[in-house]
Amino acid sequence: MTINYPKGSSHQLSSLKKDTGKKRPVNFANRGMTFEAEINQTNQYYLDRDIAVIHKKPTPVQIVSVDYPKRSAAVIKEAYFKEASTTDYNGVYKGRYIDFEAKETKNKTSFPLTNFHEHQIVHMKRCLNQQGIVFVLICFSSIKRYFLVPASLVIEFWKKKYTNGRKSIPLSDIEKKGYEIIPGFSPRIPYLETLDRYFGEGDYFK
Amino acid sequence: MTINYPKGSSHQLSSLKKDTGKKRPVNFANRGMTFEAEINQTNQYYLDRDIAVIHKKPTPVQIVSVDYPKRSAAVIKEAYFKEASTTDYNGVYKGRYIDFEAKETKNKTSFPLTNFHEHQIVHMKRCLNQQGIVFVLICFSSIKRYFLVPASLVIEFWKKKYTNGRKSIPLSDIEKKGYEIIPGFSPRIPYLETLDRYFGEGDYFK
Repeated sequence: MTINYPKGSSHQLSSLKKDTGKKRPVNFANRGMTFEAEINQTNQYYLDRDIAVIHKKPTPVQIVSVDYPKRSAAVIKEAYFKEASTTDYNGVYKGRYIDFEAKETKNKTSFPLTNFHEHQIVHMKRCLNQQGIVFVLICFSSIKRYFLVPASLVIEFWKKKYTNGRKSIPLSDIEKKGYEIIPGFSPRIPYLETLDRYFGEGDYFK
Repeated sequence: MTINYPKGSSHQLSSLKKDTGKKRPVNFANRGMTFEAEINQTNQYYLDRDIAVIHKKPTPVQIVSVDYPKRSAAVIKEAYFKEASTTDYNGVYKGRYIDFEAKETKNKTSFPLTNFHEHQIVHMKRCLNQQGIVFVLICFSSIKRYFLVPASLVIEFWKKKYTNGRKSIPLSDIEKKGYEIIPGFSPRIPYLETLDRYFGEGDYFK
């Protein structure tokens, strides 16, 4: 029997068990989840337990024309995507401001800086200046590894690219200066636990 | 000579000088600004000077259909407004998480609670639990007065409305437990100065 899983991505398929003839419960929970969905599930987990309040910002849209039909909801008839001027996620954890961007790459040995826009780098710097906790969550989807990378490392490489021309951050640097996140079931991407494990309270990324 | 100022609102017109026959520079800067525009100008002021990083969140939109014409930008052809699950503004100031909603009313003696949705109240409570600094900026447009009102006061009245049926916060309570903001030229609504004036660092709305 062939089953086609819609939107199934390779790193979830590894959890499939071979059919041994016995019926056993198969965990479908995280199969086919995108990295974004994994983070949203994680944030929902934190929210439900009063651990942190962190939301993804809505996609910025420039609305040009709206229809107001009688007796039904307003319909946006023409709109355009705008470039975001900030990172995608922010919120509060133990009184501290949390700000991050989530990025996925299929590369196996480095993380391409083309994943960022100049204004996101500027935003991260500004938040650091205000003593926010700022980082990037990176998913290396081909090798199934996740990292919490301090914004300072990304900014350092961003600056360097104008001098040495290198357009990516080597995985070895991310291993050295970032923090690996071991994905779980719930929460899927326990990044706040990673923050806590590496830093005493109040010492986040100073 | 009659001049019609588009979108000119009464509280800016007071700055108009009588024509004395001499030509003098007239300040058009804040005339006709909506409360939202005034806050955006204020946030831009703080951003430019590295005082705080506070942004308005984009309007949440559910996108249903998108056209990808050749050689031009993607056009959203069908989308709907979604209800926001958080407040409109958040960001970071001196390491602390800032979260607020901005509301305008034409009422002169009270602020109607119908300006809020249940989920916004829930969101404010959650942020308070995380020791965020949470408040509402209220503009009484008819009497030209601005207040910074701690979220705790709004939550208190929100709860009460189920017991005593009162559906608004009297201005007198806002005067007692909120903090009046004296509008300036730049920044227009200096709400962070108001925060600082009333609270020592670290004592915000505990």
